[in-house]
Amino acid sequence: MCIEDKDTSAQRIAFYLLEQNRDKARTLARAMALAANEIGRCLSCRTFSEIDRCAICSDISRDHSQICVVENPLDILAIEQASAYRGYYFVLMGRLSPLGGISAESIGIPFLDTRLSQGEIKEMIVANGTTMEGEATSHYLKELASRQGVAATRIAYGVPVGGELVFVDSSTLSRALTNRQSF
Amino acid sequence: MCIEDKDTSAQRIAFYLLEQNRDKARTLARAMALAANEIGRCLSCRTFSEIDRCAICSDISRDHSQICVVENPLDILAIEQASAYRGYYFVLMGRLSPLGGISAESIGIPFLDTRLSQGEIKEMIVANGTTMEGEATSHYLKELASRQGVAATRIAYGVPVGGELVFVDSSTLSRALTNRQSF
Repeated sequence: MCIEDKDTSAQRIAFYLLEQNRDKARTLARAMALAANEIGRCLSCRTFSEIDRCAICSDISRDHSQICVVENPLDILAIEQASAYRGYYFVLMGRLSPLGGISAESIGIPFLDTRLSQGEIKEMIVANGTTMEGEATSHYLKELASRQGVAATRIAYGVPVGGELVFVDSSTLSRALTNRQSF
Repeated sequence: MCIEDKDTSAQRIAFYLLEQNRDKARTLARAMALAANEIGRCLSCRTFSEIDRCAICSDISRDHSQICVVENPLDILAIEQASAYRGYYFVLMGRLSPLGGISAESIGIPFLDTRLSQGEIKEMIVANGTTMEGEATSHYLKELASRQGVAATRIAYGVPVGGELVFVDSSTLSRALTNRQSF
């Protein structure tokens, strides 16, 4: 995975706009100002939204028994593209980090707690990162679900589909072996 | 993951050796000839070995109840580096491909069958690729284990440890969601 250095990328865009396309720069400036003023949060899942309830939360044809907890709004796009999930979402907008001053309140846990307590959700799928903070967050979420009598599951971590074992890092391989499944 | 084009890489090595280090070229040539003549297959797991039974198969302190089936000898190195497994291995040296003329016999299935039939192995862990041939091979191996009364498991496929959801391809994400686990 090759991620371009952000500074270089931003510099390139800035120089392109200044050198070749000042009109586009003005359009972009207006769009950014508009976005900064108009885009709020979905009251239900906390993702970015122009309206009170985002398109996914407003779609009543989805599966009301599942909620997928992700770290940020981009994760929703990734999961929707994979077309493997038809339930609702909840966006933490971060991960628990007591040392970094990020508490359960700052990642919206009380809202999630309220949603789980309403009894409609039967399964909470945690789809977050495997960093130390990610693991701590998962553990916290599991306890939360358990208190509300909701089943907690976590997405599978392991060898990527199509990936060769020799190119996979040791931590992933180790986890893939530990989490092996009967088939 | 950026894999260098093999031709370019081989060309570079060849030109380096010819231009700057002909002695190393001769040493390398001798080593390659020696390897080609001396290195055979382990009679037990089919990996490359200079002796009848490789170092892993000769190590009686390992767990006799587990066998991990991999596609090629390099996979053994990767799993050993991950230090998450203490059983034995079996190397297929390929994957089933009826259209490509690769039969169960050519990937050593009869030897594996014999090992499973000896009753010592309780679990066969399949650690192979997720290509179409890989899936077919897994399915075949599962049937084999089932006939011999051996439990068959497969390593976990999903999001790599430390990987961000947005950088993971749709197939992997879809599999990670499908194979989610209670925790």
